[in-house]
Amino acid sequence: MSIITIVGAGMMGSAMCFPASDNGHQIRLVGTPYDQEIIRRLKEDNFHAKLGMPLPPRCTPFYYEELDQALKGCQLLIAGVPSFGIDWFAENVLSRIPDDLVVLSITKGLEDEPDGTLLPISLAYNRKKLAPGRRLSINSIGGPCISQELCQRKHTSVALCGEDLDTLYWLKSQFITTYYHIQPTQDVVGIECSVAMKNAYAVGVALAIGLAKQQGAALSNPQASLFGQAVREMLRLVHLLGGQTDSVIYATSDLYVTINSGRNRKLGEALGEGLSFQEALQRYPGLTLESIPIITRAARALRKRHELGTANFNKFPLLRHLDEIINQGAPVHIPWNEFG
Amino acid sequence: MSIITIVGAGMMGSAMCFPASDNGHQIRLVGTPYDQEIIRRLKEDNFHAKLGMPLPPRCTPFYYEELDQALKGCQLLIAGVPSFGIDWFAENVLSRIPDDLVVLSITKGLEDEPDGTLLPISLAYNRKKLAPGRRLSINSIGGPCISQELCQRKHTSVALCGEDLDTLYWLKSQFITTYYHIQPTQDVVGIECSVAMKNAYAVGVALAIGLAKQQGAALSNPQASLFGQAVREMLRLVHLLGGQTDSVIYATSDLYVTINSGRNRKLGEALGEGLSFQEALQRYPGLTLESIPIITRAARALRKRHELGTANFNKFPLLRHLDEIINQGAPVHIPWNEFG
Repeated sequence: MSIITIVGAGMMGSAMCFPASDNGHQIRLVGTPYDQEIIRRLKEDNFHAKLGMPLPPRCTPFYYEELDQALKGCQLLIAGVPSFGIDWFAENVLSRIPDDLVVLSITKGLEDEPDGTLLPISLAYNRKKLAPGRRLSINSIGGPCISQELCQRKHTSVALCGEDLDTLYWLKSQFITTYYHIQPTQDVVGIECSVAMKNAYAVGVALAIGLAKQQGAALSNPQASLFGQAVREMLRLVHLLGGQTDSVIYATSDLYVTINSGRNRKLGEALGEGLSFQEALQRYPGLTLESIPIITRAARALRKRHELGTANFNKFPLLRHLDEIINQGAPVHIPWNEFG
Repeated sequence: MSIITIVGAGMMGSAMCFPASDNGHQIRLVGTPYDQEIIRRLKEDNFHAKLGMPLPPRCTPFYYEELDQALKGCQLLIAGVPSFGIDWFAENVLSRIPDDLVVLSITKGLEDEPDGTLLPISLAYNRKKLAPGRRLSINSIGGPCISQELCQRKHTSVALCGEDLDTLYWLKSQFITTYYHIQPTQDVVGIECSVAMKNAYAVGVALAIGLAKQQGAALSNPQASLFGQAVREMLRLVHLLGGQTDSVIYATSDLYVTINSGRNRKLGEALGEGLSFQEALQRYPGLTLESIPIITRAARALRKRHELGTANFNKFPLLRHLDEIINQGAPVHIPWNEFG
């Protein structure tokens, strides 16, 4: 049995306690400075206020101030922070761990560079966020997983990606249960980029839900058209970055569930109803939308590559339109004719 | 402007009247012997009882007995029959047309042969259903299209496939409108097989809806896992048959909408709730399920290929399980661990 330290006591980080506990591991759940109240309540009666349920056996909560104690002797570190927290995580957590500690990131996001390079989180850590010359084994997990359902031990299939296959199989052995199904793959770019992009495209598909609502109808064909274009553009981007078709399947099924609920769907629906981006944000104050930086960065990178002749941005009409809506104040005017 | 004859006055055949009429064509809508009542009513007051709306201008209804008159001088024939009607269509309609008349089939289905060959409808016509040596230009259409929404002129994106690119572009020009978006492709096997298979896999994904209902919950993760496996197996089958990844995108978005409604979803849901196949059929008497022959034939072909060493049926665990449920009376026991 291992000692697993999870930093980030939000929904998804905390949900990982369940398959870990069912495998008999000792889990140390460390809150970020944003999670103080969650940790306080966990210390009081083991109830996780955000998940709405108690944590399973063998989970110990730690305040951020107790991080050193929580990291001591652990065999695996899980990065359970949202994408805007990765600089913080690199600076405050990764800086304290030994180089041979395996890290598993559950953060979804993309970073872009001036030359149009797009980096998924695990690569961004190693290339940009660590001290010069330092290299860690940072693996990541992606696929359709509503955290509460994982806590309820419902069947869930995800991909686990990283550079070293032995590490991936070891990680799989730490979490696999009768309900948590894990497929290891070395296609880091394919998995991480597509699962990040599905947040962007969930906004795109949900535009049709809002447009239909405006017309007083529930329509399938326009939604399906957008869904198809979203899959097409995710595949195109992943192929452009050197990733594989199979990896995009996880993002496709993730997109399928994300549209049925979730924050990005709310945003897309509001935009489709005719609200401007600013008005849509006002409708849902305080909503953290990971889709916004993803749309912005992916569009910026592809525009740059288009200029350099290393990509054709015209092959991404849905992403381009999402970027126009969000970053240029454009009204919704879906480029149906450019799809394909 | 062309004269277009549609044989089959069901939902989808009749829906084609709308983009055709909007392009200014003369349309002759011919009922099969099953459509007598629809045609009678159309002749009376132009109201299509199944679509629940009147037909657009320039549509003339014909009884099956008036077929010769309806075929005379037409430039395009649309086969609007369900998959169990293709022998009838070959024998009674295709036998009467000149060899140079372009045919567009909207039927979804697959036929299998003793050596494990799987033939989509358009190829089955040319290889098996016509008089020896006779060859027609049979093209087909596939993708996510709820017929009523096409009639309401809602945005719809489909693929149009066939062997000859000039014919495909001519067909596109006959139907393209501001709401009907058509992508020509020569990947006949890829489009036709995957859009047929999505009917089979809609049953598979809906198993999770029934299972969740049984548990008193609405669950996303198990459904997403099945959705991903369905896409994976459709891709695998299409690649095995020589088709392309891009074509499977149409079936993927078609699967996305089919699960939200439709007959195959009802069947899968009932099976997931614990009903046997026979009990599920009894719950919906008279329901025409195109998924049943598709599951049966695809599984039979893959089993045969497995024996011959030309395919690995173990890479299709969801299809195999659907076949066990439907053709061997097996209870639902989803092989989650075999997915990937």
